[in-house]
Amino acid sequence: MTYGCGILVREGLVMIGDTRTNAGLDNISTFRKLHIFEKPGERVMMIATAGNLSVTQNVMSHVTEGLENPETREIETLANAPSMFAAVQLIGRAVRKVRDTYGDALQSSQLDFDVALLFGGQIANQALQLFMVYAAGNFIEATDDTPYLQIGEHKYGKPVLDRAVSYQTDLYDVLKLGLISLDSTMRSNLSVGLPIDVALLRRDALTLDVDHRIDNVDSYFHDLRDRWSIALRQAHQNIPRPPYGRQKPGA
Amino acid sequence: MTYGCGILVREGLVMIGDTRTNAGLDNISTFRKLHIFEKPGERVMMIATAGNLSVTQNVMSHVTEGLENPETREIETLANAPSMFAAVQLIGRAVRKVRDTYGDALQSSQLDFDVALLFGGQIANQALQLFMVYAAGNFIEATDDTPYLQIGEHKYGKPVLDRAVSYQTDLYDVLKLGLISLDSTMRSNLSVGLPIDVALLRRDALTLDVDHRIDNVDSYFHDLRDRWSIALRQAHQNIPRPPYGRQKPGA
Repeated sequence: MTYGCGILVREGLVMIGDTRTNAGLDNISTFRKLHIFEKPGERVMMIATAGNLSVTQNVMSHVTEGLENPETREIETLANAPSMFAAVQLIGRAVRKVRDTYGDALQSSQLDFDVALLFGGQIANQALQLFMVYAAGNFIEATDDTPYLQIGEHKYGKPVLDRAVSYQTDLYDVLKLGLISLDSTMRSNLSVGLPIDVALLRRDALTLDVDHRIDNVDSYFHDLRDRWSIALRQAHQNIPRPPYGRQKPGA
Repeated sequence: MTYGCGILVREGLVMIGDTRTNAGLDNISTFRKLHIFEKPGERVMMIATAGNLSVTQNVMSHVTEGLENPETREIETLANAPSMFAAVQLIGRAVRKVRDTYGDALQSSQLDFDVALLFGGQIANQALQLFMVYAAGNFIEATDDTPYLQIGEHKYGKPVLDRAVSYQTDLYDVLKLGLISLDSTMRSNLSVGLPIDVALLRRDALTLDVDHRIDNVDSYFHDLRDRWSIALRQAHQNIPRPPYGRQKPGA
Protein backbone atom coordinates (compact mmCIF):
# COMPACT_ATOMS: atom_id res chain seq x y z
CA MET A 1 0.00 0.00 0.00
CA THR A 2 0.95 3.64 -0.28
CA TYR A 3 -0.34 7.01 0.71
CA GLY A 4 0.40 10.06 -1.39
CA CYS A 5 -1.24 13.47 -1.57
CA GLY A 6 -0.88 16.64 -3.56
CA ILE A 7 -2.29 19.97 -2.36
CA LEU A 8 -2.50 22.95 -4.73
CA VAL A 9 -3.24 26.30 -3.12
CA ARG A 10 -2.95 29.96 -4.05
CA GLU A 11 0.73 30.18 -3.06
CA GLY A 12 1.88 26.89 -4.56
CA LEU A 13 1.95 23.12 -4.46
CA VAL A 14 2.91 20.55 -1.81
CA MET A 15 3.41 16.90 -2.68
CA ILE A 16 4.07 14.10 -0.20
CA GLY A 17 4.57 10.38 -0.58
CA ASP A 18 5.61 7.54 1.67
CA THR A 19 8.19 4.98 0.61
CA ARG A 20 6.89 1.65 1.84
CA THR A 21 6.17 -1.17 -0.56
CA ASN A 22 4.99 -4.57 0.49
CA ALA A 23 4.22 -7.95 -0.96
CA GLY A 24 2.33 -9.32 2.00
CA LEU A 25 3.03 -8.23 5.56
CA ASP A 26 6.32 -10.08 5.69
CA ASN A 27 8.01 -8.57 2.67
CA ILE A 28 8.44 -4.86 3.17
CA SER A 29 10.84 -2.61 1.30
CA THR A 30 11.64 1.07 0.84
CA PHE A 31 11.24 2.60 -2.62
CA ARG A 32 10.99 6.25 -3.51
CA LYS A 33 7.48 6.97 -4.82
CA LEU A 34 7.77 10.75 -5.14
CA HIS A 35 9.72 11.54 -8.30
CA ILE A 36 11.02 15.00 -9.13
CA PHE A 37 12.01 16.47 -12.51
CA GLU A 38 13.47 19.91 -12.22
CA LYS A 39 15.11 22.30 -14.65
CA PRO A 40 15.30 25.37 -12.42
CA GLY A 41 13.81 28.42 -14.14
CA GLU A 42 12.26 26.30 -16.89
CA ARG A 43 10.08 23.54 -15.39
CA VAL A 44 9.45 21.63 -12.20
CA MET A 45 7.38 18.45 -12.30
CA MET A 46 6.57 15.94 -9.59
CA ILE A 47 4.98 12.50 -9.79
CA ALA A 48 3.73 10.49 -6.81
CA THR A 49 2.87 6.87 -7.54
CA ALA A 50 0.68 4.20 -5.95
CA GLY A 51 -0.04 0.65 -6.97
CA ASN A 52 1.94 -2.31 -8.26
CA LEU A 53 5.60 -1.25 -8.22
CA SER A 54 6.50 -3.05 -11.46
CA VAL A 55 3.75 -1.07 -13.18
CA THR A 56 4.61 2.33 -11.73
CA GLN A 57 8.36 1.93 -12.35
CA ASN A 58 7.60 0.96 -15.93
CA VAL A 59 5.43 4.05 -16.37
CA MET A 60 8.19 6.23 -14.94
CA SER A 61 10.72 4.75 -17.38
CA HIS A 62 8.45 5.45 -20.35
CA VAL A 63 7.90 9.10 -19.43
CA THR A 64 11.59 9.74 -18.93
CA GLU A 65 12.87 7.75 -21.92
CA GLY A 66 10.05 8.99 -24.12
CA LEU A 67 7.01 7.80 -26.05
CA GLU A 68 5.89 8.84 -29.51
CA ASN A 69 3.17 11.47 -29.52
CA PRO A 70 0.53 10.01 -31.89
CA GLU A 71 -0.30 13.46 -33.28
CA THR A 72 3.12 15.05 -33.74
CA ARG A 73 5.01 11.77 -34.32
CA GLU A 74 7.75 13.15 -32.09
CA ILE A 75 9.25 11.40 -29.09
CA GLU A 76 7.87 13.14 -26.04
CA THR A 77 9.30 13.09 -22.50
CA LEU A 78 8.53 15.03 -19.37
CA ALA A 79 11.58 17.13 -20.19
CA ASN A 80 10.28 18.32 -23.57
CA ALA A 81 6.49 18.19 -23.19
CA PRO A 82 5.22 21.63 -24.24
CA SER A 83 2.67 21.94 -21.43
CA MET A 84 1.51 20.26 -18.25
CA PHE A 85 -1.55 19.10 -20.17
CA ALA A 86 0.67 17.49 -22.83
CA ALA A 87 2.77 15.94 -20.06
CA VAL A 88 -0.20 14.41 -18.23
CA GLN A 89 -1.46 13.00 -21.53
CA LEU A 90 2.00 11.47 -22.01
CA ILE A 91 1.71 9.85 -18.57
CA GLY A 92 -1.72 8.53 -19.55
CA ARG A 93 -0.29 6.99 -22.73
CA ALA A 94 2.50 5.40 -20.68
CA VAL A 95 -0.08 3.86 -18.33
CA ARG A 96 -2.03 2.43 -21.26
CA LYS A 97 1.15 1.12 -22.88
CA VAL A 98 2.13 -0.74 -19.72
CA ARG A 99 -1.44 -2.00 -19.43
CA ASP A 100 -1.35 -3.29 -23.00
CA THR A 101 1.93 -5.06 -22.33
CA TYR A 102 1.29 -6.59 -18.91
CA GLY A 103 -2.44 -6.28 -18.14
CA ASP A 104 -3.50 -9.72 -19.38
CA ALA A 105 -0.53 -11.50 -17.82
CA LEU A 106 -1.16 -9.77 -14.47
CA GLN A 107 -4.78 -10.81 -14.65
CA SER A 108 -3.74 -14.42 -15.28
CA SER A 109 -1.79 -14.17 -12.03
CA GLN A 110 -4.88 -12.82 -10.22
CA LEU A 111 -3.28 -9.37 -10.00
CA ASP A 112 -5.27 -6.27 -10.85
CA PHE A 113 -3.73 -3.65 -13.08
CA ASP A 114 -3.46 -1.30 -10.17
CA VAL A 115 -1.92 2.15 -10.55
CA ALA A 116 -2.68 5.74 -9.63
CA LEU A 117 -0.43 8.75 -10.02
CA LEU A 118 -0.42 12.36 -8.92
CA PHE A 119 1.27 14.73 -11.31
CA GLY A 120 1.92 18.33 -10.40
CA GLY A 121 4.17 21.17 -11.40
CA GLN A 122 4.68 24.19 -13.59
CA ILE A 123 6.38 25.14 -16.85
CA ALA A 124 7.65 28.74 -17.24
CA ASN A 125 4.90 31.22 -18.21
CA GLN A 126 2.22 28.57 -17.78
CA ALA A 127 -0.12 27.62 -14.94
CA LEU A 128 0.78 25.58 -11.87
CA GLN A 129 -1.35 22.44 -12.10
CA LEU A 130 -2.06 19.20 -10.24
CA PHE A 131 -3.57 16.08 -11.81
CA MET A 132 -4.51 12.56 -10.77
CA VAL A 133 -4.05 9.83 -13.38
CA TYR A 134 -6.11 6.63 -13.11
CA ALA A 135 -5.41 3.08 -14.25
CA ALA A 136 -7.02 3.70 -17.66
CA GLY A 137 -4.70 6.65 -18.28
CA ASN A 138 -7.59 9.09 -17.84
CA PHE A 139 -7.11 11.95 -15.40
CA ILE A 140 -8.71 14.72 -13.39
CA GLU A 141 -7.36 18.08 -12.24
CA ALA A 142 -7.52 19.73 -8.80
CA THR A 143 -9.50 22.97 -8.62
CA ASP A 144 -10.02 25.77 -6.08
CA ASP A 145 -13.07 23.93 -4.72
CA THR A 146 -11.15 20.75 -3.95
CA PRO A 147 -7.51 21.73 -3.75
CA TYR A 148 -6.12 18.33 -2.87
CA LEU A 149 -5.91 14.90 -4.48
CA GLN A 150 -4.93 11.62 -2.83
CA ILE A 151 -3.73 8.20 -3.99
CA GLY A 152 -3.50 4.88 -2.20
CA GLU A 153 -4.79 4.48 1.36
CA HIS A 154 -6.59 7.82 1.39
CA LYS A 155 -9.32 7.53 4.03
CA TYR A 156 -7.46 7.98 7.31
CA GLY A 157 -5.74 11.12 6.06
CA LYS A 158 -8.75 12.79 4.48
CA PRO A 159 -10.66 14.31 7.44
CA VAL A 160 -7.86 16.69 8.45
CA LEU A 161 -7.51 17.93 4.87
CA ASP A 162 -11.29 18.34 4.54
CA ARG A 163 -11.55 20.42 7.67
CA ALA A 164 -8.39 22.49 7.56
CA VAL A 165 -7.19 23.00 3.98
CA SER A 166 -8.61 25.63 1.67
CA TYR A 167 -7.23 27.30 -1.42
CA GLN A 168 -6.24 30.29 0.75
CA THR A 169 -4.25 28.31 3.33
CA ASP A 170 -0.62 29.40 3.84
CA LEU A 171 1.73 27.14 1.88
CA TYR A 172 3.83 26.04 4.86
CA ASP A 173 0.65 25.38 6.85
CA VAL A 174 -0.39 23.17 3.95
CA LEU A 175 2.88 21.27 4.35
CA LYS A 176 2.18 20.76 8.07
CA LEU A 177 -1.36 19.54 7.34
CA GLY A 178 -0.06 17.20 4.67
CA LEU A 179 2.36 15.73 7.21
CA ILE A 180 -0.46 15.30 9.74
CA SER A 181 -2.52 13.57 7.05
CA LEU A 182 0.42 11.21 6.37
CA ASP A 183 0.91 10.58 10.07
CA SER A 184 -2.80 9.77 10.58
CA THR A 185 -2.47 7.19 7.82
CA MET A 186 0.74 5.64 9.13
CA ARG A 187 -0.77 5.20 12.59
CA SER A 188 -3.57 3.07 11.19
CA ASN A 189 -2.07 1.26 8.22
CA LEU A 190 1.22 -0.54 8.71
CA SER A 191 1.76 -0.70 4.97
CA VAL A 192 2.29 3.07 4.88
CA GLY A 193 5.54 4.04 6.55
CA LEU A 194 8.59 6.24 6.98
CA PRO A 195 10.63 7.61 5.38
CA ILE A 196 8.34 10.22 3.80
CA ASP A 197 9.38 12.35 0.84
CA VAL A 198 8.08 15.90 0.76
CA ALA A 199 8.35 18.65 -1.85
CA LEU A 200 7.10 22.22 -1.82
CA LEU A 201 6.96 24.42 -4.90
CA ARG A 202 6.01 28.11 -4.73
CA ARG A 203 3.87 29.31 -7.62
CA ASP A 204 6.08 30.84 -10.36
CA ALA A 205 9.32 30.05 -8.47
CA LEU A 206 10.27 27.30 -10.96
CA THR A 207 12.56 25.75 -8.39
CA LEU A 208 11.66 23.75 -5.29
CA ASP A 209 11.67 25.40 -1.87
CA VAL A 210 11.61 22.01 -0.16
CA ASP A 211 12.87 18.65 -1.39
CA HIS A 212 13.28 16.64 1.78
CA ARG A 213 13.15 13.08 3.11
CA ILE A 214 11.75 12.65 6.64
CA ASP A 215 13.18 9.61 8.39
CA ASN A 216 12.40 8.09 11.77
CA VAL A 217 14.84 10.32 13.66
CA ASP A 218 13.43 13.57 12.25
CA SER A 219 12.88 15.68 15.37
CA TYR A 220 10.56 18.21 13.73
CA PHE A 221 8.22 15.45 12.57
CA HIS A 222 8.15 13.87 16.04
CA ASP A 223 7.40 17.27 17.56
CA LEU A 224 4.62 17.92 15.03
CA ARG A 225 2.92 14.63 15.88
CA ASP A 226 3.05 15.38 19.60
CA ARG A 227 1.85 18.95 19.23
CA TRP A 228 -1.03 17.87 17.05
CA SER A 229 -2.22 15.21 19.50
CA ILE A 230 -2.01 17.70 22.38
CA ALA A 231 -3.88 20.32 20.34
CA LEU A 232 -6.67 17.86 19.54
CA ARG A 233 -7.07 16.99 23.20
CA GLN A 234 -7.29 20.68 24.10
CA ALA A 235 -9.65 21.36 21.22
CA HIS A 236 -12.35 18.98 22.38
CA GLN A 237 -12.01 20.13 25.99
CA ASN A 238 -12.86 23.66 24.87
CA ILE A 239 -16.11 22.56 23.24
CA PRO A 240 -19.13 22.84 25.58
CA ARG A 241 -20.51 19.67 27.12
CA PRO A 242 -23.29 18.05 25.05
CA PRO A 243 -26.69 19.13 26.42
CA TYR A 244 -28.24 15.77 25.57
CA GLY A 245 -30.26 13.72 28.00
CA ARG A 246 -33.03 11.21 27.59
CA GLN A 247 -35.63 11.79 24.92
CA LYS A 248 -37.65 8.76 25.95
CA PRO A 249 -38.48 7.47 29.44
CA GLY A 250 -36.62 4.30 30.46
CA ALA A 251 -38.30 1.03 29.53
CA MET B 1 -22.98 1.53 4.63
CA THR B 2 -22.97 2.43 8.29
CA TYR B 3 -20.68 3.87 10.87
CA GLY B 4 -20.95 2.87 14.48
CA CYS B 5 -18.54 3.12 17.39
CA GLY B 6 -18.43 2.17 21.01
CA ILE B 7 -15.97 3.72 23.47
CA LEU B 8 -15.45 2.20 26.91
CA VAL B 9 -13.52 4.33 29.41
CA ARG B 10 -13.02 4.46 33.15
CA GLU B 11 -16.21 6.42 33.77
CA GLY B 12 -18.49 4.56 31.40
CA LEU B 13 -19.53 3.71 27.88
CA VAL B 14 -20.59 5.78 24.86
CA MET B 15 -22.22 4.19 21.83
CA ILE B 16 -23.10 5.97 18.61
CA GLY B 17 -24.65 4.82 15.34
CA ASP B 18 -25.94 6.50 12.23
CA THR B 19 -29.28 5.56 10.68
CA ARG B 20 -28.69 5.53 6.95
CA THR B 21 -29.23 2.40 4.92
CA ASN B 22 -28.82 2.18 1.20
CA ALA B 23 -29.28 -0.23 -1.64
CA GLY B 24 -27.30 1.65 -4.21
CA LEU B 25 -26.92 5.43 -4.17
CA ASP B 26 -30.50 5.99 -5.29
CA ASN B 27 -32.30 4.01 -2.60
CA ILE B 28 -31.61 5.53 0.78
CA SER B 29 -33.65 5.03 3.94
CA THR B 30 -33.50 5.75 7.65
CA PHE B 31 -33.41 2.81 10.08
CA ARG B 32 -32.39 2.81 13.69
CA LYS B 33 -29.16 0.85 14.07
CA LEU B 34 -28.48 1.55 17.75
CA HIS B 35 -30.76 -0.66 19.84
CA ILE B 36 -31.21 -0.21 23.57
CA PHE B 37 -32.43 -2.72 26.17
CA GLU B 38 -32.84 -1.19 29.59
CA LYS B 39 -34.24 -2.41 32.89
CA PRO B 40 -33.14 0.47 35.09
CA GLY B 41 -31.27 -0.77 38.14
CA GLU B 42 -30.94 -4.27 36.71
CA ARG B 43 -29.32 -4.17 33.27
CA VAL B 44 -28.57 -1.83 30.37
CA MET B 45 -27.49 -3.29 27.02
CA MET B 46 -26.87 -1.61 23.69
CA ILE B 47 -26.32 -3.10 20.25
CA ALA B 48 -25.10 -1.15 17.22
CA THR B 49 -25.39 -2.97 13.90
CA ALA B 50 -23.72 -2.74 10.50
CA GLY B 51 -24.20 -4.79 7.35
CA ASN B 52 -27.12 -6.18 5.41
CA LEU B 53 -30.28 -4.88 7.10
CA SER B 54 -32.26 -8.10 6.59
CA VAL B 55 -29.49 -9.96 8.41
CA THR B 56 -29.10 -7.53 11.31
CA GLN B 57 -32.86 -7.18 11.86
CA ASN B 58 -33.15 -10.97 11.93
CA VAL B 59 -30.35 -11.19 14.51
CA MET B 60 -32.09 -8.57 16.64
CA SER B 61 -35.36 -10.52 16.51
CA HIS B 62 -33.63 -13.71 17.63
CA VAL B 63 -31.95 -12.12 20.62
CA THR B 64 -35.16 -10.47 21.80
CA GLU B 65 -37.51 -13.41 21.12
CA GLY B 66 -34.96 -15.91 22.39
CA LEU B 67 -32.80 -18.82 21.28
CA GLU B 68 -32.16 -22.08 23.08
CA ASN B 69 -28.90 -22.16 25.00
CA PRO B 70 -27.30 -25.46 23.84
CA GLU B 71 -25.87 -26.11 27.33
CA THR B 72 -28.75 -25.20 29.62
CA ARG B 73 -31.52 -26.07 27.12
CA GLU B 74 -33.30 -22.91 28.25
CA ILE B 75 -34.57 -20.16 25.99
CA GLU B 76 -32.20 -17.25 26.40
CA THR B 77 -32.85 -13.59 25.56
CA LEU B 78 -30.96 -10.39 26.25
CA ALA B 79 -33.43 -9.83 29.07
CA ASN B 80 -32.57 -13.01 30.96
CA ALA B 81 -28.97 -13.72 29.97
CA PRO B 82 -27.07 -14.17 33.24
CA SER B 83 -23.99 -12.18 32.17
CA MET B 84 -22.70 -9.95 29.39
CA PHE B 85 -20.52 -12.87 28.29
CA ALA B 86 -23.59 -15.13 28.05
CA ALA B 87 -25.41 -12.37 26.16
CA VAL B 88 -22.65 -11.87 23.60
CA GLN B 89 -22.52 -15.63 23.06
CA LEU B 90 -26.28 -15.52 22.45
CA ILE B 91 -25.75 -12.81 19.84
CA GLY B 92 -23.07 -14.95 18.21
CA ARG B 93 -25.48 -17.92 18.05
CA ALA B 94 -28.13 -15.67 16.50
CA VAL B 95 -25.62 -14.55 13.84
CA ARG B 96 -24.75 -18.16 13.01
CA LYS B 97 -28.42 -19.15 12.91
CA VAL B 98 -29.19 -16.40 10.39
CA ARG B 99 -26.14 -17.42 8.44
CA ASP B 100 -27.27 -21.03 8.35
CA THR B 101 -30.70 -19.95 7.15
CA TYR B 102 -29.81 -17.32 4.54
CA GLY B 103 -26.06 -17.53 3.87
CA ASP B 104 -26.22 -19.84 0.84
CA ALA B 105 -29.16 -18.03 -0.71
CA LEU B 106 -27.44 -14.66 -0.25
CA GLN B 107 -24.33 -16.05 -1.88
CA SER B 108 -26.40 -17.27 -4.86
CA SER B 109 -27.53 -13.65 -5.22
CA GLN B 110 -23.89 -12.48 -5.13
CA LEU B 111 -24.42 -10.98 -1.67
CA ASP B 112 -21.90 -11.55 1.08
CA PHE B 113 -23.11 -12.53 4.51
CA ASP B 114 -22.13 -9.17 5.85
CA VAL B 115 -22.75 -8.25 9.47
CA ALA B 116 -20.88 -6.70 12.39
CA LEU B 117 -22.28 -5.69 15.76
CA LEU B 118 -21.10 -3.78 18.77
CA PHE B 119 -22.54 -4.95 22.05
CA GLY B 120 -22.00 -3.03 25.27
CA GLY B 121 -23.56 -2.65 28.65
CA GLN B 122 -23.69 -3.79 32.23
CA ILE B 123 -25.69 -6.11 34.47
CA ALA B 124 -26.02 -5.24 38.19
CA ASN B 125 -22.96 -6.27 40.25
CA GLN B 126 -21.04 -7.26 37.11
CA ALA B 127 -18.53 -5.48 34.91
CA LEU B 128 -19.30 -2.89 32.23
CA GLN B 129 -18.16 -4.46 28.95
CA LEU B 130 -17.98 -3.74 25.23
CA PHE B 131 -17.72 -6.40 22.50
CA MET B 132 -17.56 -6.56 18.71
CA VAL B 133 -19.27 -9.54 17.07
CA TYR B 134 -18.14 -10.66 13.62
CA ALA B 135 -19.98 -12.41 10.79
CA ALA B 136 -18.99 -15.85 12.10
CA GLY B 137 -20.50 -15.06 15.49
CA ASN B 138 -17.05 -14.82 17.06
CA PHE B 139 -16.23 -11.72 19.07
CA ILE B 140 -13.57 -9.60 20.71
CA GLU B 141 -13.70 -7.32 23.73
CA ALA B 142 -12.40 -3.77 24.18
CA THR B 143 -9.63 -3.31 26.74
CA ASP B 144 -7.88 -0.40 28.47
CA ASP B 145 -5.23 -0.42 25.73
CA THR B 146 -7.74 0.03 22.92
CA PRO B 147 -10.86 1.44 24.50
CA TYR B 148 -12.89 1.80 21.34
CA LEU B 149 -14.33 -0.51 18.68
CA GLN B 150 -15.80 0.47 15.32
CA ILE B 151 -18.10 -1.13 12.73
CA GLY B 152 -18.84 -0.23 9.13
CA GLU B 153 -17.01 2.63 7.42
CA HIS B 154 -14.40 3.00 10.13
CA LYS B 155 -11.38 4.64 8.51
CA TYR B 156 -12.36 8.31 8.30
CA GLY B 157 -13.38 8.42 11.94
CA LYS B 158 -10.42 6.53 13.37
CA PRO B 159 -7.61 9.14 13.51
CA VAL B 160 -9.40 11.44 15.97
CA LEU B 161 -10.12 8.51 18.29
CA ASP B 162 -6.53 7.29 18.02
CA ARG B 163 -5.08 10.64 18.95
CA ALA B 164 -7.53 11.90 21.54
CA VAL B 165 -9.24 9.02 23.35
CA SER B 166 -7.67 7.14 26.22
CA TYR B 167 -9.15 5.06 29.00
CA GLN B 168 -8.83 8.10 31.32
CA THR B 169 -10.72 10.55 29.07
CA ASP B 170 -13.74 12.28 30.65
CA LEU B 171 -16.96 10.55 29.61
CA TYR B 172 -18.63 13.61 28.10
CA ASP B 173 -15.40 14.42 26.25
CA VAL B 174 -15.60 10.90 24.88
CA LEU B 175 -19.11 11.68 23.63
CA LYS B 176 -17.82 14.83 21.87
CA LEU B 177 -14.99 12.86 20.27
CA GLY B 178 -17.39 10.16 19.15
CA LEU B 179 -19.54 12.80 17.49
CA ILE B 180 -16.50 14.29 15.76
CA SER B 181 -15.56 10.80 14.57
CA LEU B 182 -19.10 10.36 13.17
CA ASP B 183 -18.98 13.79 11.53
CA SER B 184 -15.61 13.05 9.88
CA THR B 185 -17.16 9.93 8.40
CA MET B 186 -20.34 11.63 7.19
CA ARG B 187 -18.34 14.32 5.43
CA SER B 188 -16.56 11.73 3.31
CA ASN B 189 -19.05 8.91 2.85
CA LEU B 190 -22.54 9.81 1.66
CA SER B 191 -23.83 6.44 2.78
CA VAL B 192 -23.34 7.46 6.42
CA GLY B 193 -25.81 10.16 7.46
CA LEU B 194 -28.01 11.92 9.98
CA PRO B 195 -29.89 11.33 12.17
CA ILE B 196 -27.35 9.89 14.62
CA ASP B 197 -28.36 7.95 17.72
CA VAL B 198 -26.19 8.42 20.79
CA ALA B 199 -26.24 6.75 24.18
CA LEU B 200 -24.11 7.33 27.26
CA LEU B 201 -24.00 4.98 30.24
CA ARG B 202 -22.09 5.79 33.43
CA ARG B 203 -20.34 2.82 35.01
CA ASP B 204 -22.56 1.26 37.70
CA ALA B 205 -25.44 3.69 37.03
CA LEU B 206 -27.58 0.94 35.45
CA THR B 207 -29.64 3.57 33.65
CA LEU B 208 -28.70 5.70 30.67
CA ASP B 209 -27.55 9.31 31.15
CA VAL B 210 -28.06 10.03 27.45
CA ASP B 211 -30.39 8.40 24.95
CA HIS B 212 -30.70 10.94 22.19
CA ARG B 213 -31.25 11.27 18.45
CA ILE B 214 -29.34 14.06 16.68
CA ASP B 215 -31.15 15.32 13.59
CA ASN B 216 -30.14 17.86 10.99
CA VAL B 217 -31.43 20.84 12.96
CA ASP B 218 -29.52 19.96 16.14
CA SER B 219 -27.81 23.25 17.03
CA TYR B 220 -25.27 21.71 19.42
CA PHE B 221 -24.05 19.31 16.75
CA HIS B 222 -23.71 22.13 14.19
CA ASP B 223 -21.77 24.18 16.73
CA LEU B 224 -19.51 21.23 17.57
CA ARG B 225 -18.61 20.76 13.89
CA ASP B 226 -17.78 24.43 13.48
CA ARG B 227 -15.76 24.66 16.68
CA TRP B 228 -13.78 21.57 15.77
CA SER B 229 -12.89 22.87 12.31
CA ILE B 230 -11.83 26.22 13.78
CA ALA B 231 -9.77 24.48 16.47
CA LEU B 232 -7.97 22.35 13.86
CA ARG B 233 -7.10 25.44 11.86
CA GLN B 234 -5.70 27.14 14.97
CA ALA B 235 -3.87 23.98 16.00
CA HIS B 236 -1.75 23.74 12.89
CA GLN B 237 -1.05 27.46 12.90
CA ASN B 238 0.49 27.10 16.36
CA ILE B 239 2.93 24.42 15.18
CA PRO B 240 6.31 25.86 14.12
CA ARG B 241 7.05 26.13 10.42
CA PRO B 242 8.81 23.05 9.00
CA PRO B 243 12.57 23.67 8.88
CA TYR B 244 12.96 21.64 5.71
CA GLY B 245 14.79 22.83 2.63
CA ARG B 246 16.64 21.08 -0.12
CA GLN B 247 18.71 18.03 0.67
CA LYS B 248 19.97 17.66 -2.89
CA PRO B 249 21.10 20.32 -5.36
CA GLY B 250 18.65 20.97 -8.22
CA ALA B 251 19.17 18.92 -11.37
